Amino acid sequence: MPPQRATLLQVAQRAGVSRSTASFVLAGRHQDMRISEDARQRVLRAAQELDYRPNLMARSLRTKVTRTIALVSDTLASDPYAGRAINGSLAAAVAHGHLLFIGETEGDPVVEEKLISDFLDRQVDAFIYASMFTRYVRLPKQLKGRSVVLLNCLTHRSRPAQHQVIPDELAAGWTAATTLLEAGHRGGIHLVGSPGEHVFAGRERLAGIREGLHAADVRLAGTVECDWWPDSAYEAVSRALAEGLMPQALICLNDRIALGTYQALREAGLDIPDAVSVISFDDSELAAWLRPQLTSISLPHYQLGWQAVEKLLGPASDPAVLRVPMPVRRRASVAKPAVR
Amino acid sequence: MPPQRATLLQVAQRAGVSRSTASFVLAGRHQDMRISEDARQRVLRAAQELDYRPNLMARSLRTKVTRTIALVSDTLASDPYAGRAINGSLAAAVAHGHLLFIGETEGDPVVEEKLISDFLDRQVDAFIYASMFTRYVRLPKQLKGRSVVLLNCLTHRSRPAQHQVIPDELAAGWTAATTLLEAGHRGGIHLVGSPGEHVFAGRERLAGIREGLHAADVRLAGTVECDWWPDSAYEAVSRALAEGLMPQALICLNDRIALGTYQALREAGLDIPDAVSVISFDDSELAAWLRPQLTSISLPHYQLGWQAVEKLLGPASDPAVLRVPMPVRRRASVAKPAVR
Repeated sequence: MPPQRATLLQVAQRAGVSRSTASFVLAGRHQDMRISEDARQRVLRAAQELDYRPNLMARSLRTKVTRTIALVSDTLASDPYAGRAINGSLAAAVAHGHLLFIGETEGDPVVEEKLISDFLDRQVDAFIYASMFTRYVRLPKQLKGRSVVLLNCLTHRSRPAQHQVIPDELAAGWTAATTLLEAGHRGGIHLVGSPGEHVFAGRERLAGIREGLHAADVRLAGTVECDWWPDSAYEAVSRALAEGLMPQALICLNDRIALGTYQALREAGLDIPDAVSVISFDDSELAAWLRPQLTSISLPHYQLGWQAVEKLLGPASDPAVLRVPMPVRRRASVAKPAVR
Repeated sequence: MPPQRATLLQVAQRAGVSRSTASFVLAGRHQDMRISEDARQRVLRAAQELDYRPNLMARSLRTKVTRTIALVSDTLASDPYAGRAINGSLAAAVAHGHLLFIGETEGDPVVEEKLISDFLDRQVDAFIYASMFTRYVRLPKQLKGRSVVLLNCLTHRSRPAQHQVIPDELAAGWTAATTLLEAGHRGGIHLVGSPGEHVFAGRERLAGIREGLHAADVRLAGTVECDWWPDSAYEAVSRALAEGLMPQALICLNDRIALGTYQALREAGLDIPDAVSVISFDDSELAAWLRPQLTSISLPHYQLGWQAVEKLLGPASDPAVLRVPMPVRRRASVAKPAVR
C-alpha cells in the first residue's frame, strides 16, 4: 500500500490551529490573513513532519493550471538522434517548473486525436507538436486556439499562428559551401544524396549550398543520386567512381551517406582528405567515429527541444518561425584540393 | 484563448434533464438509476454536440486513479539507443489506456527527490524507475511501498520487492560464444574491451562467454583491453596486431568497439570474416552499416520498456527479476576459421 497522504486537517491539528489557518499559511497568505509568526512556524513544522504535500490536482481544479505540458510527436522517441529533442524539451520544462508528458502517434490521425483528447482530459497547460523530420504539417483541430509551439515542423500559413522552431537548414547548406571554399576548393565539388523536392532538409540544404557556392562564382559539378542510407551511398559512389568520376570534394546530405561514401572512396584507394575532401550534415555520433573524423554541420536536436519549450513557457512574443543555427563541427575530412 | 470546456450542467440543460441524471448517464449508471433510454440518448447526444469531456482530474480526486505513470530515469532519453526503451514504455502504457510522464535526474539525488515529489503531487498511479546502463540501484525512499517496476536496474535484495526488468546479458555472452563455436572456431578467440568488474553488462557478458566456450572445452585466448569506444578500440587492436597478435575471432563487448576493431583490422590488411571473424553486442544501427555487416547480439531496448510497463499495469504477479532475451542478429562478419 502506498503511504497515506497527510491531510490538511492533520497538519492543522498537529499545529494546534484551525484548518483555514493552516490552509492560509501553506498558501503563503499569512500576512493578509494576519496570522501570527508563531502559528505560521507551527504549521510549517507540522507540514514538514507529516510530509504534507498540497493536493495539486485539487488546486488545479480551482486555478485551472496543472503545470504540465505534453509533447506530441509522430515518432520522435524512436529515432536515435531526434530523441535528444525530448531531452532538451525536458530540461527546459523542468527549468520552468513544469513536467512533461510524451506521446507518439506514428503519424496516425486517429491515434493523434485520441492522444490529444487524453491530454486535454488531464488538463495539460500547453503542447509541443513535434515531427521527427522537418516538414510541413496541418495543426490538429483540437489544438487550435490553445497554447502550442511547433517543433521541427511548420504550417503553410504565411503569418504563423504559433511559434515554429526548426533547424536553419538553408544557412547550413551555405556553411557547407563556405567551409569547402575556405579550404581552397573551386571545382570538382559534387553532392552525394538525392535532395528530393518534397524533403525539407534536402531542398534547403541544396539551396544553401548553391547560394554559398554561387556567391564565390562556383557551381556544383554534379550530383551522385542515392537514398540517405550507407548502403545506397556506397553503391552509388562506387559506381560513379568506376565510371570515371574524379571529385575534389563531396558534400554528403547526411552522415549516413558520408559513411557509405567513406567506404566507397576507401575501396577505390582514394585518401580522405588528401585526395578527396568530404563534408556532411547532422553531426551524429558517427561523425566522430569515422576515420578520419568527419567534418559535419550539426543538427542541434537538443537546442530545438529546449527552444520550443522556452517559446511555450517563456515571455510571450508574436508567433514566428525560429530558425535555430546549425554550427559546423570541423574535424579532419576537409583539406585543400588535391593537385592533379 | 483555449476553447471553453463544456460543463456537465450545460450538457444537462441541453438534454433537458437534471445535472445528476446527466452525471449518472455519463458514468454508465443509467440502469441502476432507472434512467429512461430516451433521456439517456438525449444526454449522450448533447455531450457529443458540446464536445463534453469529463473532468478527469475532478474524477481522479474521487477515484484516486489518474491513469498516468511516470518514467523516472537518470539519462535514458539522452542516449541514442536506450531512448527506445521510452518508446516501448510509451506503447505499452497506451495499450493499457495510460499516459506517460517522463523525467530525468542525471543521477542527482536532489533532482530525483524533487522530481518524484512533483509526480506524486500530480498523483501518478505508478512508476517506472529506469537506468541507462544496467546497474544496481537503491530505490528512492519516496517510492517505497508504491507501485514501481525497475527498468534496466536491480536492487541488492535477495527477494526483490518490485519487478526488475533487465536484459539477459549472461545468456547473451553464451550466445556469442556458441555462434563462434558453431562456425567452427576452437582457438584464437580474443575478447576486445575491458569487461570492468563494476560494469554489469561487461561482467555478465564475459561470464556468459566463458561458460559458453567452457561447455565445448574451449578457452578465451586473451583480452585486448580498451574503453568501450571506437578510438580506444582502434588503438588497442592496432597495437596488439603490431605486437604480433594473430586472432581467429574477436568478440567485441559492444558495436562501438567493433567499429574501432574493423578500422584496425582493415589497416592491417586483415579481411573480415575470411581472416578474422568479428562478433559484437548491442545490435545498434551501426551493426548493419559496417562493411561487412556485423553479427551482433541485440540489446532489446524496446522490449525492455514494453515489459516493464506490462509488469506495472498487467496482471499482478510476485515480484521477480525478469531477464529479457537478447537474440543474435546473424550478418556477415562471422565465418569458419582461416587456415594458417
